[in-house]
Amino acid sequence: MLTEIGKRVKDASVKLAVASTDDKNRILKAIATALRENCDKILEANALDLKNGRENGMAESLLDRLMLNVDRIESMAQGVEGVIALPDPVGRVLWETERPNGMKIQRVSTPLGVIGIIYEARPNVTSDAAALSIKSGNTAILRGGKEAFNSNSAIMDVMRDAIAKEGYNPDIVELVRDTSRESANALMKMNGYIDILIPRGSAKLINAVVQNSTVPVIETGAGNCHVYIDEFADIDMAVKIVNNAKTRRISVCNTAESLLIHKNIAELALIAIKAKLDEKNVILYGDEVACAICPDIEKATEEDWATEYLDYKMSVKIVSSVDEAIEHIRKYSTNHSESIVTDNMEIAEKFMNSVDSAAVYHNVSTAFTDGGEFGFGAEIGISTQKLHARGPLGLPQLNTFKYKIYGDGQVR
Amino acid sequence: MLTEIGKRVKDASVKLAVASTDDKNRILKAIATALRENCDKILEANALDLKNGRENGMAESLLDRLMLNVDRIESMAQGVEGVIALPDPVGRVLWETERPNGMKIQRVSTPLGVIGIIYEARPNVTSDAAALSIKSGNTAILRGGKEAFNSNSAIMDVMRDAIAKEGYNPDIVELVRDTSRESANALMKMNGYIDILIPRGSAKLINAVVQNSTVPVIETGAGNCHVYIDEFADIDMAVKIVNNAKTRRISVCNTAESLLIHKNIAELALIAIKAKLDEKNVILYGDEVACAICPDIEKATEEDWATEYLDYKMSVKIVSSVDEAIEHIRKYSTNHSESIVTDNMEIAEKFMNSVDSAAVYHNVSTAFTDGGEFGFGAEIGISTQKLHARGPLGLPQLNTFKYKIYGDGQVR
Repeated sequence: MLTEIGKRVKDASVKLAVASTDDKNRILKAIATALRENCDKILEANALDLKNGRENGMAESLLDRLMLNVDRIESMAQGVEGVIALPDPVGRVLWETERPNGMKIQRVSTPLGVIGIIYEARPNVTSDAAALSIKSGNTAILRGGKEAFNSNSAIMDVMRDAIAKEGYNPDIVELVRDTSRESANALMKMNGYIDILIPRGSAKLINAVVQNSTVPVIETGAGNCHVYIDEFADIDMAVKIVNNAKTRRISVCNTAESLLIHKNIAELALIAIKAKLDEKNVILYGDEVACAICPDIEKATEEDWATEYLDYKMSVKIVSSVDEAIEHIRKYSTNHSESIVTDNMEIAEKFMNSVDSAAVYHNVSTAFTDGGEFGFGAEIGISTQKLHARGPLGLPQLNTFKYKIYGDGQVR
Repeated sequence: MLTEIGKRVKDASVKLAVASTDDKNRILKAIATALRENCDKILEANALDLKNGRENGMAESLLDRLMLNVDRIESMAQGVEGVIALPDPVGRVLWETERPNGMKIQRVSTPLGVIGIIYEARPNVTSDAAALSIKSGNTAILRGGKEAFNSNSAIMDVMRDAIAKEGYNPDIVELVRDTSRESANALMKMNGYIDILIPRGSAKLINAVVQNSTVPVIETGAGNCHVYIDEFADIDMAVKIVNNAKTRRISVCNTAESLLIHKNIAELALIAIKAKLDEKNVILYGDEVACAICPDIEKATEEDWATEYLDYKMSVKIVSSVDEAIEHIRKYSTNHSESIVTDNMEIAEKFMNSVDSAAVYHNVSTAFTDGGEFGFGAEIGISTQKLHARGPLGLPQLNTFKYKIYGDGQVR
């Protein structure tokens, strides 16, 4: 069955890859309209998922991720419309040259082909991922979690109907209607049908895809992010940045999980930061020096340094130099986002050049690692790997390139 | 043992990633000099490999690939010096912007970290790959074929000694001194130590790496390349291009393996092309129409369309439109290099936009898919995959990027 889907979606990719911007936007407009018009149908399917979830004892936080309502469907439709407004990434001349023999070489952006996305409980990913794929000229095979099966199926049916009614091939997007572990594993081996696989969800899901996929993968997500308060930091700024990086939204991947403070400023900085974090009841887990400064800080274990809490919790370590901070980050970071707070430009540059993460900040909160905040528009995730793309995966990152070479009979 | 190598080479990557261009060039100069000075030592080791090869009945063509002499070692040294002359790819500002909140974002090129390279019988890869890795700020773990074990070990020892004598950490390059299948398999699972794995060699080797590696892979190599002679082609140009694309060097991956001709020009074009290819005794395997035009063309089987001959052989198919040519290429190509010969710009653009290969040519021989010919300098291979880089893998393609964000206390 998966091969059949693979074949349909791959065949559909041929035309979509060369579709005009107008055509792609027309499809997206039709999808947005259809989502609104079929709100009741989608909510009905979602109610079934929620009922099943409750019966299976699903946690409230997961039920909340799964839950749709009129507002959330409206925001899904607006999300699709937001993609219409973004520039078409396909066909950009990225570089060109003329060689001594007269041939002209262009590097031109082109779609990847077929994108596979494996995700978990959020049904809005179904329309978000479809919209980004279509606008970037890629067809998509989506495989959501079993908890959201009815919601995802309803959303996909609505989208495919809308695409077909506009006169286009609905196979530009399809949902794998088999939510068994086998279907996910089979998807990971579909070389020749899928050009790139993007897992969206827990560290466990991402790791399973990396371990098992023979299709090229872009890793997204896991973020054990650090803020380092240097000895030349402005303490007020440090307090503001740590508070924002930790508490703005605890559940997102760019949330700071670990605080490093230079020993020469440790007492002043830690007391001020802790006072601010106490307002939100953030629990700190510190090394010996941190615990000596603030005795009500809990003692950190080795495990804490590597933990992405996604909670009102943060580890704290006092370091004796920027080098020790860099070393600690190298050891424990997931290479997502790290920030240094300092007034010393030289130390800042050392930190930013040596820390090997997708985004490195100087005097800025890690909360900005986000396609929208970078000015890229909607994104399909944050890449924490080095191949192809790092950081926000927006429309341009869902393209590859080819070389077009023009001549008049050149031979070697 | 591999983990121990992995740890050493990864640790060495920290300093090399931020090394100055001068430092890297100094290392390369020392390597080139040492290769020349230790020519005898390397040839002695190579003689042992050749002796073993002969005793094991190795084919002459493989023995030739394995064989080193003074000229070949000189050209290895010159290859390393050629990399000195190339621009440093690290630290380029690829894009920058200032956001409304005043923070400045830069996308800056950075090394990938540790590159793993699995290759076969050519010992010159040992110095070529080391030089490209070092100049691009990456450390490298090399694992050559067992046939070249003594040669590779000698070359690596010479390089590491030269690096150490210059006062740098020799662990910026290392050779896996275990040529068992297990060592290759273990390398493919070294996530956390190796950032990217590049197989260089046969389609079989590449496929084994793609199937088994959990480390991200860049596929290189296999090329079932096509030349399409459109009905509006200049026949003289067609003859010149097909001859060059097929016979310039039959053993390289951008050699044309399949010829497609529009039916309206088939008789004229095929007879002229065949007359030229006959001079080099190229055997043609044709479809029915081709065989009807030239009865001494052998009949092609389904297998021929998918075959990368790497020999004086070529398949020929007569098609009734550019669309049929595109469809045939989509079905059988390895997406390396394809060329259209036509005077019709509209048909040329259709072909070049629809054919999904790393390099698509209009009125140019496929022989130009080569880092040097594109003006990139030395390359580590030709990528035929869509993720990260397509076409020649030169120094810039051995880098990733990070975002550096500068601010003065920005929070969200």
